[in-house]
Amino acid sequence: MIKVGIVGGTGYTGSELLRLLALHPQVELAAITSRGEVGQPVADMFPALRKRVSIAFSEPTFESLKHCDVVFFATPHGVCMAQAGELVRAGIRVIDLGADFRLKNTTEFERWYGMPHSEPELLKTAVYGLVEAHREAIRSASLVGLAGCYPTAVQLALKPLLVEGAPLIDEQSIVADCKSGVSGAGRKAAVGSLFSEASESFKAYGVSGHRHLPEIEQGLSLISGRPSQLTFTPHLVPMVRGILATVYVRLNEAGQATDLQALYEQHYQDEFFVDVMPKGALPETKWVRGSNYVRLAVHRPQGRNTAVILSTIDNLVKGASGQAVQALNVMFGLPEHTGLEQLALAP
Amino acid sequence: MIKVGIVGGTGYTGSELLRLLALHPQVELAAITSRGEVGQPVADMFPALRKRVSIAFSEPTFESLKHCDVVFFATPHGVCMAQAGELVRAGIRVIDLGADFRLKNTTEFERWYGMPHSEPELLKTAVYGLVEAHREAIRSASLVGLAGCYPTAVQLALKPLLVEGAPLIDEQSIVADCKSGVSGAGRKAAVGSLFSEASESFKAYGVSGHRHLPEIEQGLSLISGRPSQLTFTPHLVPMVRGILATVYVRLNEAGQATDLQALYEQHYQDEFFVDVMPKGALPETKWVRGSNYVRLAVHRPQGRNTAVILSTIDNLVKGASGQAVQALNVMFGLPEHTGLEQLALAP
Amino acid sequence: MIKVGIVGGTGYTGSELLRLLALHPQVELAAITSRGEVGQPVADMFPALRKRVSIAFSEPTFESLKHCDVVFFATPHGVCMAQAGELVRAGIRVIDLGADFRLKNTTEFERWYGMPHSEPELLKTAVYGLVEAHREAIRSASLVGLAGCYPTAVQLALKPLLVEGAPLIDEQSIVADCKSGVSGAGRKAAVGSLFSEASESFKAYGVSGHRHLPEIEQGLSLISGRPSQLTFTPHLVPMVRGILATVYVRLNEAGQATDLQALYEQHYQDEFFVDVMPKGALPETKWVRGSNYVRLAVHRPQGRNTAVILSTIDNLVKGASGQAVQALNVMFGLPEHTGLEQLALAP
Amino acid sequence: MIKVGIVGGTGYTGSELLRLLALHPQVELAAITSRGEVGQPVADMFPALRKRVSIAFSEPTFESLKHCDVVFFATPHGVCMAQAGELVRAGIRVIDLGADFRLKNTTEFERWYGMPHSEPELLKTAVYGLVEAHREAIRSASLVGLAGCYPTAVQLALKPLLVEGAPLIDEQSIVADCKSGVSGAGRKAAVGSLFSEASESFKAYGVSGHRHLPEIEQGLSLISGRPSQLTFTPHLVPMVRGILATVYVRLNEAGQATDLQALYEQHYQDEFFVDVMPKGALPETKWVRGSNYVRLAVHRPQGRNTAVILSTIDNLVKGASGQAVQALNVMFGLPEHTGLEQLALAP
Repeated sequence: MIKVGIVGGTGYTGSELLRLLALHPQVELAAITSRGEVGQPVADMFPALRKRVSIAFSEPTFESLKHCDVVFFATPHGVCMAQAGELVRAGIRVIDLGADFRLKNTTEFERWYGMPHSEPELLKTAVYGLVEAHREAIRSASLVGLAGCYPTAVQLALKPLLVEGAPLIDEQSIVADCKSGVSGAGRKAAVGSLFSEASESFKAYGVSGHRHLPEIEQGLSLISGRPSQLTFTPHLVPMVRGILATVYVRLNEAGQATDLQALYEQHYQDEFFVDVMPKGALPETKWVRGSNYVRLAVHRPQGRNTAVILSTIDNLVKGASGQAVQALNVMFGLPEHTGLEQLALAP
Repeated sequence: MIKVGIVGGTGYTGSELLRLLALHPQVELAAITSRGEVGQPVADMFPALRKRVSIAFSEPTFESLKHCDVVFFATPHGVCMAQAGELVRAGIRVIDLGADFRLKNTTEFERWYGMPHSEPELLKTAVYGLVEAHREAIRSASLVGLAGCYPTAVQLALKPLLVEGAPLIDEQSIVADCKSGVSGAGRKAAVGSLFSEASESFKAYGVSGHRHLPEIEQGLSLISGRPSQLTFTPHLVPMVRGILATVYVRLNEAGQATDLQALYEQHYQDEFFVDVMPKGALPETKWVRGSNYVRLAVHRPQGRNTAVILSTIDNLVKGASGQAVQALNVMFGLPEHTGLEQLALAP
Repeated sequence: MIKVGIVGGTGYTGSELLRLLALHPQVELAAITSRGEVGQPVADMFPALRKRVSIAFSEPTFESLKHCDVVFFATPHGVCMAQAGELVRAGIRVIDLGADFRLKNTTEFERWYGMPHSEPELLKTAVYGLVEAHREAIRSASLVGLAGCYPTAVQLALKPLLVEGAPLIDEQSIVADCKSGVSGAGRKAAVGSLFSEASESFKAYGVSGHRHLPEIEQGLSLISGRPSQLTFTPHLVPMVRGILATVYVRLNEAGQATDLQALYEQHYQDEFFVDVMPKGALPETKWVRGSNYVRLAVHRPQGRNTAVILSTIDNLVKGASGQAVQALNVMFGLPEHTGLEQLALAP
Repeated sequence: MIKVGIVGGTGYTGSELLRLLALHPQVELAAITSRGEVGQPVADMFPALRKRVSIAFSEPTFESLKHCDVVFFATPHGVCMAQAGELVRAGIRVIDLGADFRLKNTTEFERWYGMPHSEPELLKTAVYGLVEAHREAIRSASLVGLAGCYPTAVQLALKPLLVEGAPLIDEQSIVADCKSGVSGAGRKAAVGSLFSEASESFKAYGVSGHRHLPEIEQGLSLISGRPSQLTFTPHLVPMVRGILATVYVRLNEAGQATDLQALYEQHYQDEFFVDVMPKGALPETKWVRGSNYVRLAVHRPQGRNTAVILSTIDNLVKGASGQAVQALNVMFGLPEHTGLEQLALAP
């Protein structure tokens, strides 16, 4: 059994890790920490876990975690950076669901996150945790900076277009119009996330600049080996879970000559969690809710030169905790879908 | 492996059966029938099942089902009544998620369902499928008339109060104020179930008489051995899944002298799926969503003589398809929670 | 023009007052105060008011309000109590949308609100602001303690049954099972009111005791002249606006002999805002959303002795700001519906 | 008083017309027709109108409408085309909320709507009903083909960029990523519009081609005098009302040199219903819900060459019935906001 620790179990990615790990046949939940809740059973805070999860919160110290094989950080940025070094040096593998180890450029990190990066050396060893793109590196990683939710949806939407020898699209004018459920804002009390504010309404946010923009641009370049530029507009949907990315690309001549449907199907044919839907499909977020799948569809409206790729994930599963478990499975040599076989909850 | 057939797989209880059975380790999905969809892969209609369920719809005939060990009917009333006899006589066990085999009194059936009962003899052999109340009879049943969604929530709320030697409450003045998500209305296109009608609104329905009223009154009498009378008011909640029953009972002197919390905890201590929450708890439907649990809490506001029992289930799981799988497990000698271990999806 | 001031304009009842008063033909919005937002245009906080409301927040001082004819307090309890005396003594009429002047018994106030009442003498002069029940007293009141949202729905549901010479029901065993949209919890950042918590879920709250219980019991006694006892269970509905009260009463012999439909229709025939719906009707909260109407229906299921009254209002309008404007109209001799003619926004 | 008739009052745009016209001081509701509901009071179908609208449905014949000054068609496509001629020839002005008189090219009409156009001559006289763009022509029009909901939001988002002498953007590569509430699908019973399907989910639809695409391209050309090409992707948001259009344009050199905020503010400074929000604003659909406003914001993320315009309307008001009343006001010489002064219902 793999001994797992969780730092920061009081948010939605933390509770989602518990939901998934409680049914993972190869995992033992060894510790979960939260400074403010020491001694409280986790199931008191998340009654959905009652009768199945009996562990209580402990102090967020090295002592609590030192017997773990792997530790997940489901914490705000800055927390993992402060604690990961000690764990990694003790031989404990770390998966950060937060943002501390995503951006390779510390200047970019400081610009977007408003704090200096305290572990630049450790950052160099971190592997970017988008499993379908960096599986081999993750296998042996000591430290994984898990991909963000929007970046997961957008990169998987674009990956087949980027890995060919020559570009198929204008990689400098990509538009990613993305929509997320409200759970993406976390479990923090904030007026803008109140039911009475977010319900029955729709809006864009972060239009002038969102932290996932540099992550996506970096990620696309990691995949293609070439720089990319995109316009990224996140929106808030009055639902709890789910992301739909609607990605617009300008096809160049090579792209126009390509059978995009075939390209996507071939590219992802061996991926357990990637579902390239049939031509003309219109994936709905509900079809992945609670599951680790991404469902994709490729369109070329009116036969014009702009292709539209639709990509949907559950932001708390494939966009966070499910992908974290998927990474754990890769890191420990388990079948990638172990503990992740749940189907989407629909309706 | 138990060979399972499903009649009527195009509604929500049908698709929910598929979601659950796809992960059941002892079940093989042998046939699913739908007159209108013969040949169509089930996953075309329910894309949430893609990559996991490959079966296609077949004709709703005996031929399609004759190799099954057990057949679920997820059909409108009248359908199971017409087909169950042939199956049962062929030795195939039947679990009806519909209403054909719930009411023992055929006059009552005809009054509430507006059709004569065509199988009165078979009806006599049918066992009422509320597992926690009739487990032993279900074990050997050929035909189970599964309890309805509201009846499950209300009966489990009241059962501990009814099984004592002497009554604890006025069994003639029970009030069950019940609230259900919209999926309870099924997947039928109807103006009243449209998003634009049901969303951001709340209403009572069936106030003058709802089919679950005679079922609940019959069920309470089966449990207590005494007649009961209740006022039952269902309401429609702008959410997809979940039932909360708020049940009001007048405590008699014996009831006032009873420690209700202790009574409930003891009564249900061995039940896997019944969670008697701590004193003062306020169960939320989200804490059972997608799972087969019922969560209960008992209150006695202001120390007065009216007790309030709160009971919550997922109407599609414990209120229908999950309870059907639970019944199957009992009928085939499996641990009762086989294939039903999923935790609630929250948030 | 009536000069109106608002204290505490940053919550939902405050912004709702602005929505209604902006179109009131006899009202001039003279001042709106908020300590934290001095100088900020109200429409910056509530962009729905842009292009129509140009006033900015001012200091919450007597100076800001002294030229008003009437001041609304849309504040947490305790605030109006501290400021109303000075205003009333200066001849400015006060309408408190909060709870400071509802309960006549200061001991009860302290028990339920956890603070001593600082204005017991002023409290004696306060009129309870349920217009349909206390119109004449409101006409000449200096200080109105506006009825709460649930109390408005429940009292209007029961009033026709209570005003007859002899009782029609068992007034000691009333059950009021009430459901409210999330805006009832206000605009305060709190985890329980987050979209991801409240959406797609349903729960009871305050079962062991809610502040509206003593207010309703007091209000019913004010109407009937006799003590009443009820069990009151509020629930949270995943919608923004709306209350539905489902009220259960045991009819005595006189009640059983009464034509309840006729009783209700006659009782409310002259009320502009009370709509007694036809026999068998099932009022939906959406049918009053954004309007000041209450819609009622009376049922007697199965011809048994328990009657069920359904009563629906918009908690922010008839349950708060609309009723406040209605009270203002009464106090200043205007037609009661002035500025309140908007129809419900449906769908 | 202007005598108004409504053909097809049983859908959402019909009931919304009633909500607005009931408070319009210069309008008398003379007739409302519906073949299936003759004799039924409108308020029986739409109880939100009770106590205010007493008219009943009549036969959809010329006889019912011949005394009207103006007739609104709130009908599926094909209906207005069949009846408008007779009315117009009788001197009755017609406003079609449907699609029959939007597309000037009958070939395009037939391609997108699947039926021949039966009134090509009448079509030539029809004025396109986007008031802010074609106010003068509407003033004297006999027949107005009201702009669709998405086309209203998108055209108003782009209009300031198109009316300058020289182009500011690449008018051949516009992307309009649009999101609408479910009421846009109308009041027709359809599985895809069920609460249990649409709630807690998000999807694109009509990606390969939507009827509003040719309307928008035609409308943009009407404004600019030049051809335009856009990629238009509509999405379904789990809310009832509201459209947000997120429009992406590539700025050319002239565009890059333009102060877009100033351009928009100046362009719309005299429009009652157009609110150009301050720089950096993120308009929410809730801020226009139930009102006739459009709220706009212009962004240029990262100072790059793609501008993002956000445009929000209530699809049933500015996108249909409110714009219809606005057109009526223009046609009859009334102040444009008569009967349309309601503020948005928020929260």
